[in-house]
Amino acid sequence: MARQLYDLCGRDERLRFSPFCWRVRMALAHKGLEFTTRPWHFLEKEALAFAHHDKVPVLVDGEQVVTDSFDIMRYLDDAYPQAPLFGEGASYQRARFFKHFVERSVTPVLFKIVALDLLAAIHPSDREYFRETREARFGCTLEALHQPDQGRKQLAQALAPVYAQLKESQFIDGDAPSGADYLLFGSMMWAYTVSLEPLVTAGDDVDQWFKRMLSAHDGVAGKATTVRDLA
Amino acid sequence: MARQLYDLCGRDERLRFSPFCWRVRMALAHKGLEFTTRPWHFLEKEALAFAHHDKVPVLVDGEQVVTDSFDIMRYLDDAYPQAPLFGEGASYQRARFFKHFVERSVTPVLFKIVALDLLAAIHPSDREYFRETREARFGCTLEALHQPDQGRKQLAQALAPVYAQLKESQFIDGDAPSGADYLLFGSMMWAYTVSLEPLVTAGDDVDQWFKRMLSAHDGVAGKATTVRDLA
Repeated sequence: MARQLYDLCGRDERLRFSPFCWRVRMALAHKGLEFTTRPWHFLEKEALAFAHHDKVPVLVDGEQVVTDSFDIMRYLDDAYPQAPLFGEGASYQRARFFKHFVERSVTPVLFKIVALDLLAAIHPSDREYFRETREARFGCTLEALHQPDQGRKQLAQALAPVYAQLKESQFIDGDAPSGADYLLFGSMMWAYTVSLEPLVTAGDDVDQWFKRMLSAHDGVAGKATTVRDLA
Repeated sequence: MARQLYDLCGRDERLRFSPFCWRVRMALAHKGLEFTTRPWHFLEKEALAFAHHDKVPVLVDGEQVVTDSFDIMRYLDDAYPQAPLFGEGASYQRARFFKHFVERSVTPVLFKIVALDLLAAIHPSDREYFRETREARFGCTLEALHQPDQGRKQLAQALAPVYAQLKESQFIDGDAPSGADYLLFGSMMWAYTVSLEPLVTAGDDVDQWFKRMLSAHDGVAGKATTVRDLA
């Protein structure tokens, strides 16, 4: 059965940095599901018309078309129950809380660290669109938003509960990565892919966790192209 | 079987505000377990010598003596498996993450809102101890720490993922309160018990959740004495 993921690409087609697409790529790897990616640019809205959606990720799984990264992960749990990403009941609810933690408390701070790196990584034809939509969202220019030193301090604060968690287990979800790990990893991988500077202190608990995540599932994320490979 | 909880009390013995004791009181109510409380002051260290511990909560459950609020909740799940608070595996791990979120990202901000209210609520003989230990922990005087307006703004930010969560479910853990709800509620109840001012905007999603928590389990928390009752 053909399984294809529409995946944001940057100025080089190999450069894949969408935090939402990375969640899904890791979730597919977690389930041991084969897939190909279809590189997509921000302005290719018509290419997603079949999905009645205008953003990636979009997963085409045989006859099924699923949009939104969290909904895709839920779909994968329903369609392929082995190795649950979220589980049911309170387990699912707490994964949903973790998604909100990542999106509300972590990702905006990462944006401060890499705003201009992200702009540079994006395909030239997408840059005007990216600047307009993000400046409207944040209410300031990308140049004003880009405050990497302040962002790194705020990131350490925002990640304080993650640092505490990783004192007692190798992964957020326990001895092996699962749904919550992929939710945070997506955002960290997004910034890691486009930035020349480290996000956290080398060797600290989050850095070590991130390296374990890069190695997980045959190193699928660790093999990905970053801006450092293109320099 | 006698079940007794050593519970911090304030200037009035009915005033009970420890965030860690409230977690456990709600957890016991969740399991439908009867208990009595033994009011305890900060300086009664010798009263806890039997538990080889110097802080409350301490739960005496027949022959069992259990310390530390999170460990007590785990103990309750082991000893009384009905209506799990945390569950196992990823569910447990995500509850543990939520505990760290509450303790690292929420409770310090609540402290800014109620630092001096808390001092006033504490038993006069405990105040010197409280001031010394907390000023050492925060590196400033309680008067400098007490910044309620700034604290309320920071609380809304810190709780952003909770607000997002409560858009989709009545409780953090789903349709009914469970472990994660009690972990956050303990800290909110701590501030609510000692403060004359609201913590969040009246009628907003967290305020409504808090009111549901006050009503839960026959309104055990809603019936508790606050400083407003003693004014």
